[in-house]
Amino acid sequence: MRIDILTLFPDMCRAVLGESILKRARGAGLIEINCRDIRAYTKDKHRRVDDSPYGGGYGLIMQAQPIYDCFMSLCAELGKRPHLVYMSPQGNVLTQERIKELAKLDNLALLCGHYEGVDERVISEIADEQLSVGDYVLTGGELPALVVADAISRLQPGVLSADEAFEDESHFSGLLEYPQYTRPFMWNGSEVPEVLLSGHHANIKRWQRERSLERTLRRRPDLLINAQLTDDDKAFIKELKKASAPDD
Amino acid sequence: MRIDILTLFPDMCRAVLGESILKRARGAGLIEINCRDIRAYTKDKHRRVDDSPYGGGYGLIMQAQPIYDCFMSLCAELGKRPHLVYMSPQGNVLTQERIKELAKLDNLALLCGHYEGVDERVISEIADEQLSVGDYVLTGGELPALVVADAISRLQPGVLSADEAFEDESHFSGLLEYPQYTRPFMWNGSEVPEVLLSGHHANIKRWQRERSLERTLRRRPDLLINAQLTDDDKAFIKELKKASAPDD
Repeated sequence: MRIDILTLFPDMCRAVLGESILKRARGAGLIEINCRDIRAYTKDKHRRVDDSPYGGGYGLIMQAQPIYDCFMSLCAELGKRPHLVYMSPQGNVLTQERIKELAKLDNLALLCGHYEGVDERVISEIADEQLSVGDYVLTGGELPALVVADAISRLQPGVLSADEAFEDESHFSGLLEYPQYTRPFMWNGSEVPEVLLSGHHANIKRWQRERSLERTLRRRPDLLINAQLTDDDKAFIKELKKASAPDD
Repeated sequence: MRIDILTLFPDMCRAVLGESILKRARGAGLIEINCRDIRAYTKDKHRRVDDSPYGGGYGLIMQAQPIYDCFMSLCAELGKRPHLVYMSPQGNVLTQERIKELAKLDNLALLCGHYEGVDERVISEIADEQLSVGDYVLTGGELPALVVADAISRLQPGVLSADEAFEDESHFSGLLEYPQYTRPFMWNGSEVPEVLLSGHHANIKRWQRERSLERTLRRRPDLLINAQLTDDDKAFIKELKKASAPDD
């Protein structure tokens, strides 16, 4: 798979792409991620890429031409038109389900806006989709694009080991993850829960599942609506609710 | 305000902090953001910071000691205990409201997890809060921490001009933003909407408000529940719903 990030800040993106799992995945040829500098495509003699908004108001709007030409040069290089996602607070909210779908594409382009926004005409013309990473306001689309690139990279075959990928899938089963512990057994006066040392596989699994359910009920009850729950899960949740009812 | 990011990947974080509005805000002394390398605090002779999970399973869990000592050294440097947020998919989902509250703090520390997770005991011991940037799976907490740092930086007094800040506030009034246009007037066969050139301030404002309402209704109807709507807004939405009813 190949991802192209269209941005005014290619160096910032490259710095992130050169680290951690993204570095490993790219080094092993499991994914190709490139940054394309929008400013390199401006036809303005002062290399400007933005101007004031029509209708008044403060701030600057990114102009259509540099973005359009940047995208066209990418299409020419690929010999085809990649799926283009405009990272925008006006988009649909990103979910892991959408990441899984995007991860199946051969080519993906991510357009990063900046300043107060982007001329609507170029968005209408080239964007196939708009995605928001969440309901908060950021300076630009670079961090959101890197979030998408990171989440997609993890899912490329070979980036995680088969065992990790399997476990990953079960971890993200729609519930929050259970607490994790590693060495030493005793830290700061606190021991690892005894069941985890029991070697009793079924008991460990049950303990972990119950902690996931407990945590999800407490912190993100909205997730329980779509989670796949067994009859045992439902009975456990009912118990939890009953136990906490008088205090809450 | 001062933000400290506790991470295994300080170089990646520094690269992002050195660009764009974050660079400007830091350069002008409007905010201080530092990165602290968790690995520098390990007492392991091989400089390891992770180990296998108790109870079995794949992947590696970050150990308590290096994180704890890293945080303690920060507390010693500051002469006080900053509010510590652990960036985690198990946390509350980040919102602009929470960003506004965090932006008022004098000190904030952001802990980035990596690998399969972090030993629960150190989280219980030092974390005041857990925040998730969204329901998707990332490699680590670095991008989420940078998202928080970026969103908070924008809100520091002086980072945006007074006019920008005022407009920013109204932009994020709980609706999606209206479309924006800039020069040239005609691009790729498409003109800027006429009303924006009319100079008629009230008409422009109304057009923009209606486009916001229309877009929010179509893409994020969930936002309308908490948005502050006037009687005119409500009447316009009713019209929109009526007009689209036969087709949808």
